[in-house]
Amino acid sequence: MSSGVTIALDAMGGDSAPKMVVAGANIARERFPDLRYIMVGREAEIAPLLAKMPKLESITELQHTDNAVRADERPSVALRSGRQSSMRLAINAVSEGRAHGVVSAGNTGALMAMSKFVMKTLPGVSRPAIATYFPTLRGESILLDLGANLNCNADNLVDFAAMGNAFARSILGIPEPSYGLLNVGSEDIKGHEDLQVAATILRASSLPGHFYGFVEGDDIGKGTVDVVVTDGFTGNVALKTAEGTAKLVNEFIRRTFRSSLLAKIGYLFARSAIQKMRQRIDPRRYNGAMFLGLNGIAVKSHGGTDALGFANAIGVAYDLHRQEIIRKIQADVAHLHGDPSASQAAD
Amino acid sequence: MSSGVTIALDAMGGDSAPKMVVAGANIARERFPDLRYIMVGREAEIAPLLAKMPKLESITELQHTDNAVRADERPSVALRSGRQSSMRLAINAVSEGRAHGVVSAGNTGALMAMSKFVMKTLPGVSRPAIATYFPTLRGESILLDLGANLNCNADNLVDFAAMGNAFARSILGIPEPSYGLLNVGSEDIKGHEDLQVAATILRASSLPGHFYGFVEGDDIGKGTVDVVVTDGFTGNVALKTAEGTAKLVNEFIRRTFRSSLLAKIGYLFARSAIQKMRQRIDPRRYNGAMFLGLNGIAVKSHGGTDALGFANAIGVAYDLHRQEIIRKIQADVAHLHGDPSASQAAD
Repeated sequence: MSSGVTIALDAMGGDSAPKMVVAGANIARERFPDLRYIMVGREAEIAPLLAKMPKLESITELQHTDNAVRADERPSVALRSGRQSSMRLAINAVSEGRAHGVVSAGNTGALMAMSKFVMKTLPGVSRPAIATYFPTLRGESILLDLGANLNCNADNLVDFAAMGNAFARSILGIPEPSYGLLNVGSEDIKGHEDLQVAATILRASSLPGHFYGFVEGDDIGKGTVDVVVTDGFTGNVALKTAEGTAKLVNEFIRRTFRSSLLAKIGYLFARSAIQKMRQRIDPRRYNGAMFLGLNGIAVKSHGGTDALGFANAIGVAYDLHRQEIIRKIQADVAHLHGDPSASQAAD
Repeated sequence: MSSGVTIALDAMGGDSAPKMVVAGANIARERFPDLRYIMVGREAEIAPLLAKMPKLESITELQHTDNAVRADERPSVALRSGRQSSMRLAINAVSEGRAHGVVSAGNTGALMAMSKFVMKTLPGVSRPAIATYFPTLRGESILLDLGANLNCNADNLVDFAAMGNAFARSILGIPEPSYGLLNVGSEDIKGHEDLQVAATILRASSLPGHFYGFVEGDDIGKGTVDVVVTDGFTGNVALKTAEGTAKLVNEFIRRTFRSSLLAKIGYLFARSAIQKMRQRIDPRRYNGAMFLGLNGIAVKSHGGTDALGFANAIGVAYDLHRQEIIRKIQADVAHLHGDPSASQAAD
């Protein structure tokens, strides 16, 4: 690899691939001058797109394959029969040391299964998790797990807390993140036994940052803590519920400003401010979920995103490499398991 | 009881009790001319309030007790030592046939434990659940369970579907509600085994309405189905996440309209439309969660609500009695357990 940062792209993943992937790569290239790409996919489709963007073409190595993982393919099937898929070959580029991270907008389950199989789980991590960040009243927070693990025990939740913590330091730049366990009440007696045990372990641990205790669903939007830790089932439902509610309120507002002539006039005056607010909570800004706990950087983009959203997902992979997230997670996990010198060295 | 509808009120439950309870009862009285009350609580505090509202006083039987359940009391403690509490005596009024339903803004866990102990679970219902309704893009939908049962098996989820169905017919007036199981994907293969089994049972059942299959978090705000069924942990997190996100977006809007002079002028034009929209999604409109599956009507109001919100909770208890919700649930549950004539008779 050259001295820059090389990101491998699954050029065939996502609803509008490869066009959206190539256009997104071009946007990210402008933001990060030392970025290089390995694009994996059908040469006949990608090469003509690259030919129109000579600057992008000059920093891109195109790796041809005809095979691609289908959006509805079962992860186990993709793992067995997708060895020559664009997704798998892009992941391989990371494990072979040719790229610093991989980004795909394809099938989430397949990307998780393949990344885990190829990159392997970091020593000491009980299970990998999926994490993302989102806007809150206080700024931005992180939520994990988003669906990699439907059932989680106390050890898994503790590992997620450590990994989310490293993610917050790397991607949000918060030196001492606060973190909490998502529960149905903030009192100590509430919730599953696994939550109780995880809280006890986290209270006794000395991870960087501050263990807040239990948080509830409404604390997610408030931004009560920097890192919200939960099992994959609850996290997936919570994230999608939040997205759905934001859309609902947005739609109510849209209807409100169309409901009368006065409201329409009001909109004209407020338009620039409203557009600024929309940009602030634009879901494309928050595109890019990271698979934490693997020995490599794998970022999942929304399948339905556009070039701008995909460029942001590439930015997440870039930042995580620059911030040495893998080393931070390794240090925190070692720290959790009884090596107190490890975490200090990581920041 | 007289020919009207009598609701027993825990006059000491809620942050601003008994003032908020008495004022709320007075608002609900104006809406429902045949409403009567049994108010349970400290006479010295309640009687002076009633004296100022002669019409309310004339339809209210005041039942004195000095004892009240504390907001932070453990349900098991409240159950043992709260036999003379305002909450318990109000519940007793229902089981003794003196009232048609009970409303309390007090401790949720204590209200659930006491209601279950006093009213008993309906025959054939594996576990009671808490349900509420909320605004969606399509109108209004119902979500249950909201926290009565943190762990649920397939039978519990199936019972919740039947009870939520009866609740939708009674409170939303939808003759054939659609209902779905909350999951992390809409494909049949996704989610816990209990969800798979529950889906199989519901697909084979002939409950009134239409079983949609699995829904995801974002379907809650979309209003994809009339009834969203889930376990109490997930339901509690989802409801609070939605509330928190709605507050977040509202706050962003508030800031937007203060962010510039033009935006402030825009607000003046659109103010009336914005206020109408705020009313539409006013949480007080959706105050009143029902304990479904008990042999009696018990409605929980938010502890922090005001008189208007409490009046809405009374309205929920009133409607559920008028709509014979208990008979509908009994019929649907009998139907589920193999008595196909039962449900037809219920509507």
